[in-house]
Amino acid sequence: MPIVVVGSVAYDGVETPYGKVDRMLGGACTYIALAASYFHPVQIVGVVGDDFDTADSDFLASRGIDLEGLERVPGGKTFFWQGVYSPDMNDRTTLVTDLNVFANFQPKLPESYKNAEYLLLGNIQPALQRSVREQMNRTRFTGGDTMNYWINDFREELLRTLKGWDFLLINDSEARLLSGETNLKRAARKILDMGPNTLVIKRGEYGAMLFREDQYFIVPGYLLEEVFDPTGAGDCFAGGFVGALAACGFDLKDSNVDRKELARAVIYGSVMGSFCCEKFGVERFRTLTRAEIDARYKEFQSFTDF
Amino acid sequence: MPIVVVGSVAYDGVETPYGKVDRMLGGACTYIALAASYFHPVQIVGVVGDDFDTADSDFLASRGIDLEGLERVPGGKTFFWQGVYSPDMNDRTTLVTDLNVFANFQPKLPESYKNAEYLLLGNIQPALQRSVREQMNRTRFTGGDTMNYWINDFREELLRTLKGWDFLLINDSEARLLSGETNLKRAARKILDMGPNTLVIKRGEYGAMLFREDQYFIVPGYLLEEVFDPTGAGDCFAGGFVGALAACGFDLKDSNVDRKELARAVIYGSVMGSFCCEKFGVERFRTLTRAEIDARYKEFQSFTDF
Repeated sequence: MPIVVVGSVAYDGVETPYGKVDRMLGGACTYIALAASYFHPVQIVGVVGDDFDTADSDFLASRGIDLEGLERVPGGKTFFWQGVYSPDMNDRTTLVTDLNVFANFQPKLPESYKNAEYLLLGNIQPALQRSVREQMNRTRFTGGDTMNYWINDFREELLRTLKGWDFLLINDSEARLLSGETNLKRAARKILDMGPNTLVIKRGEYGAMLFREDQYFIVPGYLLEEVFDPTGAGDCFAGGFVGALAACGFDLKDSNVDRKELARAVIYGSVMGSFCCEKFGVERFRTLTRAEIDARYKEFQSFTDF
Repeated sequence: MPIVVVGSVAYDGVETPYGKVDRMLGGACTYIALAASYFHPVQIVGVVGDDFDTADSDFLASRGIDLEGLERVPGGKTFFWQGVYSPDMNDRTTLVTDLNVFANFQPKLPESYKNAEYLLLGNIQPALQRSVREQMNRTRFTGGDTMNYWINDFREELLRTLKGWDFLLINDSEARLLSGETNLKRAARKILDMGPNTLVIKRGEYGAMLFREDQYFIVPGYLLEEVFDPTGAGDCFAGGFVGALAACGFDLKDSNVDRKELARAVIYGSVMGSFCCEKFGVERFRTLTRAEIDARYKEFQSFTDF
């Protein structure tokens, strides 16, 4: 049973200290789907304009990603984002956000998706995230991402959505904003009270943390020598995490969830996020192999084991 | 064979979001010695004025710390530092630095210290650090800490000192400044070329990393729910790290150093740093037991294992 991934499919213009690309395939849904595709079948739901390049859909299809739910709006243009990173790449400034066809995105699941067991919702309006869940017949687990904008300006909507989720996957500043707590351990406890039984907090170069009611797991970030472009790294983390869980047929609702399997999924998320940064945009996924992924997983074991 | 610890013994005035203490026992040498004393015998070298409270020297002695090298200057006053932490405690502002007797600190080793095998040099002038090493007959390992001021204004002195060290223990911003590299993996390689065979980079709440020529180890930070006062946490890390190495009779010069023992020393350093933050100043060490230390070590295993 595949993973349904919902979110933005976009073109990005990105400048980092290592170079500049005016227009390349991007979007949360794209990154999540590519990363997850190394672990489990993926079906995507998104919207693009008729400027969306066949070479790009061919690339996604070449990774086995089901594109039936990728809507093409005739005469429309694909979501375009442009940004520039700070010299240390810990901050970025958005220069252009042209929502285009994404402004009216109403995710509709093809019939062939409705029996999927895993649902990963990229960062979109919380009510839309809920509408997708309602279109599915059943899920083993449902969860996703959100961002500061929804936490601040759509808080009630978001809280309603979170009640139906098994996991939430956000970064540390979002966790602080959502919980009102600076301390991440206290923040996690408050967020777990909002609905999700599993919380993953991404900390960028510092790694990630997973919390459940009675346990937690922390992994440091992978030490890359060159970060060419961090765009999409958090989404690739999400794709690797959910892909790894789905691949072992996981049910997050089970209170006897295997702690080790959860931890391994966090490692696979970290591995996918680290590979994403090694080239601009989605380029790394044109050559990346499962053998490279498993080798880096082993590297994580070797530099964290004691 | 004991560990000789050299550095400041001071009184601190500290304000954090959790409270304010006008004057309490502090100084790098104090924190290092207290932390190390849980693992191995410690001999300290420092200087205080005749305002140094007997209750404070009694406390250090009660932890088995040898105070023969703690010089008392008649009519002098003990080093006093006062600072205030930012609300998130990631920054601090120094309000007062009265060096007092510490301004003329010329570390002199008692005869009974000269055969010690382990030497840990707190953050003092690099030439003074070198002079201590020269007073010792032999060491299994020598190393210590430094800071931005010495890296910027005493660079040549510092580089000469580092040539004779087996390990250097600094924070991430110091590693970047010393190496001129933003990327910590590249920074580590450059620093290992300066002399030390072992580099530990402390990352505060994000944990720590250990580098040697052919291997590295990374551990995330311990998740405290309340950080009352981070003063001395980095020094306690150093004390725990060196204490744990000395306790197993380690020789860092050996190229076949046990990777697991090194990693365990980093964990013990992290454990001691985390306990330090739980109360103001050195207060936590009045009640801390070795059993609590070993329990937290196990906790590190449980939240990092996969």
